Formats: sequence, structure tokens, C-alpha cells
Amino acid sequence: MTINIGVIGTGAIGADHARRISKTLIGGKIVAVNDVNISQAQSLVDELGLSATIHNSGHDLIHDDGVDAVLVTSWGPTHEEFVVAAINAGKYVFCEKPLATSAQGCRNIIEAEMQAQKRLVQVGFMRPYDSGYLQLKNAIDSGLIGEPLIVHCAHRNPSVPDTYHTPMAIHDTLIHELDVLRWLLNDEFVSAQVVFPRKTKYAHSALADPQIVLLETKKGVRIDVEVFVNCQYGYDIQCSVVGEEGIANLPEPQSLLLRKEAKLSNDILMDWKDRFIAAYDVELQAFINGISNNKLTGPSAWDGMAASIASDACVKAQQSQQIEPITMPEQPAFYR
Amino acid sequence: MTINIGVIGTGAIGADHARRISKTLIGGKIVAVNDVNISQAQSLVDELGLSATIHNSGHDLIHDDGVDAVLVTSWGPTHEEFVVAAINAGKYVFCEKPLATSAQGCRNIIEAEMQAQKRLVQVGFMRPYDSGYLQLKNAIDSGLIGEPLIVHCAHRNPSVPDTYHTPMAIHDTLIHELDVLRWLLNDEFVSAQVVFPRKTKYAHSALADPQIVLLETKKGVRIDVEVFVNCQYGYDIQCSVVGEEGIANLPEPQSLLLRKEAKLSNDILMDWKDRFIAAYDVELQAFINGISNNKLTGPSAWDGMAASIASDACVKAQQSQQIEPITMPEQPAFYR
Amino acid sequence: MTINIGVIGTGAIGADHARRISKTLIGGKIVAVNDVNISQAQSLVDELGLSATIHNSGHDLIHDDGVDAVLVTSWGPTHEEFVVAAINAGKYVFCEKPLATSAQGCRNIIEAEMQAQKRLVQVGFMRPYDSGYLQLKNAIDSGLIGEPLIVHCAHRNPSVPDTYHTPMAIHDTLIHELDVLRWLLNDEFVSAQVVFPRKTKYAHSALADPQIVLLETKKGVRIDVEVFVNCQYGYDIQCSVVGEEGIANLPEPQSLLLRKEAKLSNDILMDWKDRFIAAYDVELQAFINGISNNKLTGPSAWDGMAASIASDACVKAQQSQQIEPITMPEQPAFYR
Amino acid sequence: MTINIGVIGTGAIGADHARRISKTLIGGKIVAVNDVNISQAQSLVDELGLSATIHNSGHDLIHDDGVDAVLVTSWGPTHEEFVVAAINAGKYVFCEKPLATSAQGCRNIIEAEMQAQKRLVQVGFMRPYDSGYLQLKNAIDSGLIGEPLIVHCAHRNPSVPDTYHTPMAIHDTLIHELDVLRWLLNDEFVSAQVVFPRKTKYAHSALADPQIVLLETKKGVRIDVEVFVNCQYGYDIQCSVVGEEGIANLPEPQSLLLRKEAKLSNDILMDWKDRFIAAYDVELQAFINGISNNKLTGPSAWDGMAASIASDACVKAQQSQQIEPITMPEQPAFYR
Ligand SMILES: [Mg+2]
Ligand SMILES: [Mg+2]
Ligand SMILES: [Mg+2]
Ligand SMILES: [Mg+2]
Repeated sequence: MTINIGVIGTGAIGADHARRISKTLIGGKIVAVNDVNISQAQSLVDELGLSATIHNSGHDLIHDDGVDAVLVTSWGPTHEEFVVAAINAGKYVFCEKPLATSAQGCRNIIEAEMQAQKRLVQVGFMRPYDSGYLQLKNAIDSGLIGEPLIVHCAHRNPSVPDTYHTPMAIHDTLIHELDVLRWLLNDEFVSAQVVFPRKTKYAHSALADPQIVLLETKKGVRIDVEVFVNCQYGYDIQCSVVGEEGIANLPEPQSLLLRKEAKLSNDILMDWKDRFIAAYDVELQAFINGISNNKLTGPSAWDGMAASIASDACVKAQQSQQIEPITMPEQPAFYR
Repeated sequence: MTINIGVIGTGAIGADHARRISKTLIGGKIVAVNDVNISQAQSLVDELGLSATIHNSGHDLIHDDGVDAVLVTSWGPTHEEFVVAAINAGKYVFCEKPLATSAQGCRNIIEAEMQAQKRLVQVGFMRPYDSGYLQLKNAIDSGLIGEPLIVHCAHRNPSVPDTYHTPMAIHDTLIHELDVLRWLLNDEFVSAQVVFPRKTKYAHSALADPQIVLLETKKGVRIDVEVFVNCQYGYDIQCSVVGEEGIANLPEPQSLLLRKEAKLSNDILMDWKDRFIAAYDVELQAFINGISNNKLTGPSAWDGMAASIASDACVKAQQSQQIEPITMPEQPAFYR
Repeated sequence: MTINIGVIGTGAIGADHARRISKTLIGGKIVAVNDVNISQAQSLVDELGLSATIHNSGHDLIHDDGVDAVLVTSWGPTHEEFVVAAINAGKYVFCEKPLATSAQGCRNIIEAEMQAQKRLVQVGFMRPYDSGYLQLKNAIDSGLIGEPLIVHCAHRNPSVPDTYHTPMAIHDTLIHELDVLRWLLNDEFVSAQVVFPRKTKYAHSALADPQIVLLETKKGVRIDVEVFVNCQYGYDIQCSVVGEEGIANLPEPQSLLLRKEAKLSNDILMDWKDRFIAAYDVELQAFINGISNNKLTGPSAWDGMAASIASDACVKAQQSQQIEPITMPEQPAFYR
Repeated sequence: MTINIGVIGTGAIGADHARRISKTLIGGKIVAVNDVNISQAQSLVDELGLSATIHNSGHDLIHDDGVDAVLVTSWGPTHEEFVVAAINAGKYVFCEKPLATSAQGCRNIIEAEMQAQKRLVQVGFMRPYDSGYLQLKNAIDSGLIGEPLIVHCAHRNPSVPDTYHTPMAIHDTLIHELDVLRWLLNDEFVSAQVVFPRKTKYAHSALADPQIVLLETKKGVRIDVEVFVNCQYGYDIQCSVVGEEGIANLPEPQSLLLRKEAKLSNDILMDWKDRFIAAYDVELQAFINGISNNKLTGPSAWDGMAASIASDACVKAQQSQQIEPITMPEQPAFYR
């Protein structure tokens, strides 16, 4: 059985996912596309040699009978609308982050999905599909390091453009930790604090960089995440889980060990796009397989909302410089 | 375009490749199977839910009009016969190692393929598809470490069964280095010497273990390969290329860095099947893509023969304890 | 010129330092000893084959004309008294930590030393003499990683006895970071916060373990120190300095890289005494050399007081669970 | 008891050892010096502030009644003469390598020492005093990796001057491996073979570089040593011992782990003098302590001869390109 997929939004990530489904993954086929820029949609169709309908609107695409599942990779503020429409049309939908631009938007999606009485939504958090994080989760779940007590994380970028300002360190950067840590620890956040260290000279005036986000979970695990988006030296994701009986660290990306010019070295990636490139494949393949098996298992709308609520609290903590509570509603059985 | 594939030999590796093509890779479909044990072939069809013809002989399968390409994963001594038959039927053929059990057998295949005037054969050497070796080759080809002068290798297994005897260290174990090093260095072997160190107490009486194989190439590169198949501690593949301006080492397989029980450690694999598992996928996908593009690019029949000739010289060097020449015929333009 | 040294307190550390001076270091000689337990003092003299006077009191030893310099390695609460007495007698004095059991005690010592118009006191903080920390300081001071912005530290012990309670995590454990970080960063602490993560099952009821101490410096550097004294796996000191242009990590102690039993591993020390064993030699040699050159350069009474003040603030932060200010008096020219 | 030491030869290494004894080590004192260049001897005395007699000849120094022990750090061809003279005068003697310029010269020294009926000679091989090699030896001797079967070594220099020619790769470079491997394995060499890989473009015309030396021991251990003295990237000493149950590698020199400019790196030393700098201290301290205890334990005249014999066989193997036997005389009880 091949899953027929429509793509709303053929920008960078949408085009990438379309190529992935057409050229790398198994079981899916791009049969419809839409973009606010119709000529961009057309270009994608041509480039990939697709036989796909080009729709004038996302809603038309959603209601195309030939479409089994929808990829929402359009501009963030349109996500909620398209996801809800897809749910109401009874179609599976993969939505890139953010699921919605507000926690209320996420709640609207959850309500729609619960009314549909079926999990239809997968949110585009790819880290739970990264082979390194999977090894880390396996170490925790197997009891290899005992109960987790502390997690030390870092999320570093070489540099960011001038449009990147202080709250984006949460919404665009920390958001991945906010998702992956809940999954990794099988736990919920209860509070957040943000500390601003001395600012790097490489950050422009509207950006506090680096930042340290301190999170507390329901089980009492304490997490510190260094977010440093002008670190110069590389794109570097660190995650070290301190357990009662040992410590496990996220593996470094594979690279040659070199002896050259007075250095014993491994390369560090400079481009974030290379870091989780394999995970994007696994993530979308899981979406297709989930549809085939009639059972989605990846990041749910609930997970999307949880990240959104935590994210809002962190931004509030940036502003208040206080410890801010993170209040999650009770998780319905539907999402467990 | 989907490539319709027939599998001759549904033992471990054949079944594995069939599963790979059906469940993981894109562009191929198993449409026919054959095995000397028909019920095993039937089991595979059932298990994978294939709609595939079960043929009574490999030759029937080869001549099935619905079959575009053949996988030869039967018992080694039958490889030559099936590969030649597939070539003569004008079909693409992926043959697991050994391509043939003798250099003459390889030559027969080469002759058939040259007569067909088209590259139809890919040999099942998977290491050139391993992401680590690809990084290493890229380091060499880009000039990162200057001209290669020496290569230090190790091929270690935790243990081998009692049926494994001294020449198998060449035919079954070193064979992978004999293939991958030619590709890595873009060079040919010219001589081989084998040295027997003190024997481990873990080797049975019919096996010299460890062994050190010393190879010389046309360009003068010297290679030492430690083959140690009862090393106890793990399945471990090392390759360190010493160049004029630096040294590059094959990456270790990805694993968590752990702090536990007075050790800072990474896991070493114990099972060889885990080491190149991703490379098998890439290798077979390359075969399918090569057919689609009408241009095979992987290890050729010529490469299969080269490994076979080098292999024979190494076994002779085991016996003679002398430096044995490795004489390769001139490579025809067809294979360049 | 040989420096004649008297030792007050011949317990574990005193005996160790006496052996060091007699058998390993150059330029010093143990000529007098004292202990509340005279027979222990006698044993030490016998064991090391010293020709040394055994004094009935620390004060007698201090006033022994044959004594050029005093080592105070007696019970903590007696340190202040002996250090002040040595200063007043115009003698050099090396005092194991704590310099005094209160900040006021430290101030008394500082007052005495300033009145003596000469630096006479070295405090027994050994980490600034550790080769790894020296490399780290050199990396910072040379500008290799740009201005420091964040420091991530960990201080882990396999386990502690039942007598070890929550404030000791500061006074006995964190105290070393409190000293070495001021030196490393050439900076002063301005606030402290203590966070209690989920408690390990290996900690007894009177101990919060692990703890995370968050420090802020005058220059705005933010420091997080994980203190985890029942981590089971080893004695492990981590220090990672995040600068504007790179990150430098304290080296791991030297150990063999092993491939064994499915692990690629380095040993982690289990006993804290092995970690800085070389630094103790360097520290005491520096004291002896400082006397010979008539210029002490190691951790001063001022440094001892600074650690004490920071330490008190951290304990207060443990109790208040608030961010506590750390208020250091202006540093007199005498100590700069 | 202070050992009064005379130094014959105040060039680089002699001056270094004199400084070491005066300023760093315990128990020794430089009381006499000699050099063919008297003014150089005088400079050293002045520079170190020694009260030492400046002798007009090495023999005068040896016969100076105030001299307990002699350091022979003069020009290589004079070593034998001074060592024999010191032995005949009943004095302890530390001789930098080479002990003598021929195996016969070593035999002469051994004869003199056996006649003296007392071990008086320590040869200046410092690697057995290196903390890393000591860890490696301990791993072997404790049975941690089982019986050694293979040793892979590398001895690499960034570059060498034009005066360095092919045999010096043995006499000046490999010589250290020839000594340390006998000690490490507690074994004797029985044959040598030398292989010349493709030559680096950085080697001048009179030098084959790199070289691979293959050694066999009495117990059957096989050793390969890559000698590469124009490797460009650093001074790098590798030693990996493959045992029946695991592999132990010589530790890398301590250095910071850095994240900078797209590299995760440790520094590699460029200057050989930094690599074993600590071992020189330990080596000479052991000599002084050995005299105090009336029992030398370091590399003996026998060890010096063994290295010399092996060295000669390796040079012969360079020339013959054959496997050359290494024939050691039976070791007398005196040297066991
Ligand atoms: Mg995503
Ligand atoms: Mg294969
Ligand atoms: Mg101390
Ligand atoms: Mg030496």
C-alpha cells in the first residue's frame, strides 16, 4: 500500500521532505502540492519529476480525494488552520514545528483530534528519531545508569542572523530540547528559570547570548541547557544524563580522527542541517509506516502543546528573571 | 520504475537482502525466489508477504521474463554458474562474495560480461558503502593528508567456530580489506607476506591466530593487516591511513560515552552483523539505483577477480612464508 | 639554603607532607614536629628517620629558633591560632584548608599578616598547581578561547560516610572549586544559588545529594557546579570553560586506552587522593621555593578568606533556596 | 646522604641533567664538571651557581676523590672510555645513549663491570621511567590483557635535518623502541626485517622515510614499528599491545580537549624534548636513589648492549632487505 501525500508549503523544508518521500523513503508518494507561491510549487513538481496535482489552496489539497495524508510545511502562523482542517477531513497530518503559534492553538488541535477519536497528527520533532538520542533513551530505560537525576545540555550554533532576538533562543532553539527531554526522561517540566551570563561580543544588541535555561521536572530531575547561538566554533548539541549509577552522553556525530598540524582532532559540524539529516528520514518514514499500520507513534499534538507551554514559560522567565511554574493540564488517556 | 528482482538462495543473507528490498529500500520489488530448499523459499515469501513466484531452479528464475535483476546469495560454489547465466540472459546481477571460488571463475564472468558489452554485475562488497570508509576515502582523495604511504589495519572477531581454519583468515576475513583497500587507495597490490605471531590460547589447533598480512601496492604503499579472529573483546575494524601530511583513522561505530563503574567507556560491538548493517542498505540501494540509471557503479566483476587473485597470493604466502608476488592482468578500458 | 620546617599535626595529611618534604622535594628539611598525640609524632619521626625535635605544643614548635617555617596540618579549629602565632613569630606558614573556621578567623589572620608587612602565609589549595588546571588557565589567559562566559563544573565522589551532611558539600567539597575558579578566571564571586535535584537513593537521610551550585562573578561569568558525592562510578573532576571563541576542558587524568570485554575504555579514579597527588608535590615545592626567594606566590590568606566568604554564602543559599549575594571586601594592595 | 656527582660533557643534555640534579631532584649535588670546551663548563657552573671543580679531563674528574658518581654526557665515541674508567675507579656512572658505538664496546663495559662485581652503570634510556609506559607495563604484568602477541608502534617526528640519513632511523630513533620493548615485554628480539614504503616528498635524497621495522621476539611476539621522521604533524609515540584478552595503548600526552574552529581537538606535541621531560627527572632520581640504596635498578650495561646488537641487526636488515637474525649472548646471572 502506497500512502498518497500532499504537501502544503514547498519552501526549504517542504521541498526537502517531498524529495525525501520521493527519492529515499518507502511507501509514500507525493500526489499533490500547494504553496502561496504557485510557481515554486510547480518548480518542485518539475524538479522531482512528480505526477502531482498543484492546488490553489491548502484547503483544496486537504480535500483532494486522492490525498491520504498531508504535510504542513507552510509558514508557521498557518499551521493550526491546516492541521485542524486535515483532522476534520479525517486525514493524517505531519506538521512541522510549531504545531501552532500559541498554546491555545495547540489546544484547538487537540480538541479536534480527540473529537476525531483517532490519532492523526505527528509533529515534526526529529530528535527522538536520532540514533544517538535513541541510544541515550535506551540507556536510561534499561536502567544502565540508574534513575536520572540531572541532565546537562548545550545547544550551540556558530552564529545567527540579526533577525534572531532573545525569545527566539527559546522558540526556535530550545524548543528541540523541550521536546526531546520530555521524551527522553518520560517526565514533565514543572518550572523554568533563565540566567543571562556575560554576553558574547559576537551577539548583536537585541540578543542576550549565551543563555542558561534551568528546568525542573515532576520527578525532580534538574536540567541545565546552555543556549549559545554565536559560539563561533560549530553546531554542537550536547546532552549528558547523570544517573544514580553512571552518566551517559549523547554521541558526537561520526567523523574521522585526524592527526594533522599538531592536532589530534575530529571535525565539528558547522551547519545545523547536517546534524539530524538522518533523523529526518527516520521521522518521515515513521509517519508513513504509522499510517500504513493505522497507528501513529511519533510526537503527538499533545507533545506539540507541551513544548509550547514550556516554551511560553521559558520566555516569561527570560523577562521576569524569576523561577516560573510550568503548568501542564492532565494528560488524557487518549494521548498516553 | 520499479526493478523486479529475483533471489537465488534464501539463506541468512538472501533472506536479509529480500527483507531489505521489500521493507527498507526504494525502487525494487522481490518477484521471484529460489532455493535448494524450496520450503525455505516458501517461508520467506510468507514471512515477508511477497507476491513472488517460487522457482524450482536458479536458471528458471533467471529466465523468468518478469525478473529484471538477480540476487545470487546461494552457496558459494554455485555463484559463478548463476552469474554467468544471468549475464547471458542480459540481466543485472548482484552476487554476494565470493564472485567465484577461483580466479579462473572470475575470469569467466568477466569474459561473459565483456561479451555482453555492458556492466551487469555488482559484487557484494559492502565496505565501500560504509559511511566511515567513505569519509576516509574523501580525506584521501581531497588531499587532506597528502599522498598515502602506509595503511595500518586490523580485522578482529571475538571468536570463530572450530570449522574456521588458517586459510579462511584470508578467504573469509581479509577478503574485505583486499577489496576495500584497492578502492580506498585507487591502487593495486603487487606482493604479499604473512607473518604468524605467537598464537593465542583461544585458537584451536588447526588455526594460526593472529596473523599479520603485509601488502605492497603498485604505488609503493605498505599495508599491514592484523587478522585476529579470537581476540575475545569484540568485532573491531581498524584502518589508519598514514599520509605525507597527516593520518586519518576510520571512525569507531557510534556509541554512548559512559561513565560507570570506574570506567569512561564506549561500547565495542560483539557481533559483526551490526558493524556494516547500514552499509548493506546503501550497497543494495546503489544496485537498484544503478539499474534504474542503467549504470552500475559499485564493486565490479573485475574488483571481484582482483580480490580473488590477491587472496590466492596471500594463502600462498601463508604456506611459503615468503614474499609472494600478486600479478594482476592489465585492466581493460571496459572496467575503468 | 635548606629551609627548616616544623609540622604541627602529624595525622594523615601532615605525615604525607612530611614524607613529601623529606623524600621527594628539594630545599626543605623537617626539623620539628608536634601533635596532640605525641606518640604519633614520634612514630612519624621514626618512620621517616628524621632528626627532628618533638615539641609538646604547637606554640613551642613555632618558637623553636631552629624552625624557619611551619606546616599547620592539625585539627581545623586550631588553624587560626597557630597561623596567627607563626605570623607573629615572623615565620612562614603553610596552612591546610580551612585557613580558619570562619570568615572572621580569616580576617584575623589577614590583619596579623598585614601588620607583619610581609606575605608569610600559603593556604593549602592544591588545584592551582595541577598540570591540567594550569593548561586550562593558560588557554584562558592566552586568549585561545576568547573571554570566558560560562563554566560548567562537576565534583563527584563515589561515596561519602554517614557523617557527611548537606553543608559539607560546600565546606569540604565545593571549597576547592571556590578557590580554583577565582584563580582560573581572575574574578570574584558576587552571588550564589543552590538547587537540589532529585536525591540519589545512595545518599543517607541527612544529605541532599546531588546539588547544583550556581555562581555569578563580577565580570558576569555564570558557573554551574554539580556536586555529587555518591555518584558510585568514580572520583571525577570536570571543568569546562565556555569562551567567546571556543571551549576548553580540563584534561582527564592519564590512563591507558583499553579494548577489552566489549568496551573501549579509560579508567576513572576511585580514590580522590590519587587525583591531585602530583599537585601536592608542586604546591609544597612552591612554598619552599617561595621562602628561598623570599616571595610567596601561592594561595594567600586573602584567597583563604575569599573561599570562606563564598562558602558561607553557598551554605546560606542551601538553606534559603534564594539567590544569596557574596560580598567581598575591597582587596588591599598588599594582596594584589 | 648526598651523592656528589661529576659531569663529563656539558653540552645540551649534560647541562640539562646538571640543572635537574641541582634544581629539581633530591639527594645529589654537582661537584665537578668537565668539557672539551672548558669555557662551556665554566658557563654552566656560573649559570647554576655551583661550587664545583672544573677538571681539565674526564679522567681527572673520574679520579677526583670528591666525586661519588659520574654522568657521561660527552660526545658518543668517548662514552666507552669514560664508562670503563669510572667502573675501574669503582664509581657509579650514568651514561647517555649510546653506551658505546659498537656491540664490542658494550661488551668491554660489561666485562669491566662484572670484574668490579657490582652494578655500577645505568644507561640513559628514559622511556621505562615514563608514566605512560609504566602503566602499560603494569597492564601487561598484571595479566589485564593476557599474554602479549603483537605490538604495533610508531615513532614519528615532524621533520629531521639533512644530516639525518637512513641508518639513523635505527641508531637515533628506533633505539628507544629497541630498549623499551625488551623491558615492556620482558623478552628478547630474535629477528628483524625492514620494509621501505613509498617515500614521503618531505625526505631528502639520502633518507628512506618512512620505514617499517618488523621484529620477532623469543616468545614469538611480533612487533611492527613505523619510523616516520618527516611526518610533518607532530612528535608522536604510539605503542599498542595486543594481548590474548585485550589491547592496551600507551596514553597520549596530557592536553586540553578543545572545541574551536570546527574541530574537537587535543594538541599534539611538536618538540620531542617535551614528550619525556618528566621521565628524565624520574630516570636521574632513580640513579641517585639507586646509589643511596647501593642498588641500581635502571637500564643496565647489558640492556645497553642488547639495544646495540638489535640496532646493528636492523641496520643490516635495511641494507639486505632480508630477515636478519638477532643473536644475543646468554644473559649472565649478574645481570638478571
Ligand atoms: Mg522536524
Ligand atoms: Mg556483502
Ligand atoms: Mg591542600
Ligand atoms: Mg636518556
